[in-house]
Amino acid sequence: MIDDVPDGFVLVPLTVGYNGGFGPAYHDATRRRLGFRVAEQHLNPVGLCHGGAIATFADLQIVAAGLYDSHKPTVSLTVDYLAPAGLGDWIEGEVHCLKITRTLIFTQIVMMVADTVVARSSAIYRNSGSTV
Amino acid sequence: MIDDVPDGFVLVPLTVGYNGGFGPAYHDATRRRLGFRVAEQHLNPVGLCHGGAIATFADLQIVAAGLYDSHKPTVSLTVDYLAPAGLGDWIEGEVHCLKITRTLIFTQIVMMVADTVVARSSAIYRNSGSTV
Amino acid sequence: MIDDVPDGFVLVPLTVGYNGGFGPAYHDATRRRLGFRVAEQHLNPVGLCHGGAIATFADLQIVAAGLYDSHKPTVSLTVDYLAPAGLGDWIEGEVHCLKITRTLIFTQIVMMVADTVVARSSAIYRNSGSTV
Amino acid sequence: MIDDVPDGFVLVPLTVGYNGGFGPAYHDATRRRLGFRVAEQHLNPVGLCHGGAIATFADLQIVAAGLYDSHKPTVSLTVDYLAPAGLGDWIEGEVHCLKITRTLIFTQIVMMVADTVVARSSAIYRNSGSTV
Repeated sequence: MIDDVPDGFVLVPLTVGYNGGFGPAYHDATRRRLGFRVAEQHLNPVGLCHGGAIATFADLQIVAAGLYDSHKPTVSLTVDYLAPAGLGDWIEGEVHCLKITRTLIFTQIVMMVADTVVARSSAIYRNSGSTV
Repeated sequence: MIDDVPDGFVLVPLTVGYNGGFGPAYHDATRRRLGFRVAEQHLNPVGLCHGGAIATFADLQIVAAGLYDSHKPTVSLTVDYLAPAGLGDWIEGEVHCLKITRTLIFTQIVMMVADTVVARSSAIYRNSGSTV
Repeated sequence: MIDDVPDGFVLVPLTVGYNGGFGPAYHDATRRRLGFRVAEQHLNPVGLCHGGAIATFADLQIVAAGLYDSHKPTVSLTVDYLAPAGLGDWIEGEVHCLKITRTLIFTQIVMMVADTVVARSSAIYRNSGSTV
Repeated sequence: MIDDVPDGFVLVPLTVGYNGGFGPAYHDATRRRLGFRVAEQHLNPVGLCHGGAIATFADLQIVAAGLYDSHKPTVSLTVDYLAPAGLGDWIEGEVHCLKITRTLIFTQIVMMVADTVVARSSAIYRNSGSTV
């Protein structure tokens, strides 16, 4: 599948299971940006981008933060939906990693379609593969 | 696709777009319970149920609350992940609708695999198809 | 200060600093319930209970969960406000402790005034006095 | 009460009830920044800034956003605590107003002590004094 993506973005190399069903997501490691283009498989029953798709995309912020050397289980994910996104829209945001502790990682992202904020998310990840 | 589901559960009739990719989810309208069985398409890179799948499932709580007569856009979705769920696990929870105002609906759910809490979610939906 | 409190509730023994300014809060260890009566010092500029007071009260859920043998720093606190509470209202809720891991504790509470839900909160605490 | 506050900050003119108990908070309307100095009345039982005080401060982001021409009830307040703040610390952050709809206002803030992130918060306010 070929997407029309902005310069600097490369595929997030997570292509199995639920990430595979989501379809291609992209990141720009240098600028810590995350993006995807809304396709048929992301739509909700009224033809707009599904809240679950936005949440799944938001859960990738740990990847764009450059911290996914090993699996970092999500502890908490909050997503607020500010405006709808439609088929073909390119959703993009800069991931801010606010803090890395021994056990936790705190990130956040504001997701835009052009100049419109469509969603924001804050996340807490576990900083290891060990049991919480 | 036939799932082994507990008595009283019927398919959530949302089968296109992102809900289609998620696969079958079930609800019990009488007891306001929501459930799904973790399948291959829900897994993350380490073979456990993906946080995005849990979030997508959690976004269905408006359906199990019996309030999905028309589209209710999600305003806010918070999911905390308490324990992993694996392939074949049946994830189930009771949806509590705490309040319905003229403009907003507040629900929450605790998601269990047998006696283990795997996640909890609280959500706010817009109580109409109108613009926020 | 003497409050009119329901049977079974005793003072939360946190009476210095910000807890002291909040004023008396009560808990029922047996039933894991938390309560306080809205007084002048809790009001916002329009004479209703301040969102910050509700949040401060919600932060006590670790105490009512019976887990405050030593300081447990709050990692995450989410509060949704569903209805206003007024001067003299008794706000009460049952604290549910969903999970205790080696490093984290997950609790939640639904806060009521009589039969009306006024707020809900979910919290994550660090399960030790050690650095996160 | 006189605080040592950075240039450009003026008192938030909310000095009754729970805001009065909190003590002085400051904002810089031009740069949409919010700040306060941690004092005795903000401390928790271990002598650090209380989570409830941070939450109460975070609830003021609607004021620093320049949107408090009339009361805007809080709908949802999420606070994550990333590092402790101590007595005498100046906590400050820039409020970002991401979206104003007919019924809701979405803001967020990252709270710093010098170069250290101590907390982040996202909030949803109701955009009117009307019933939700």
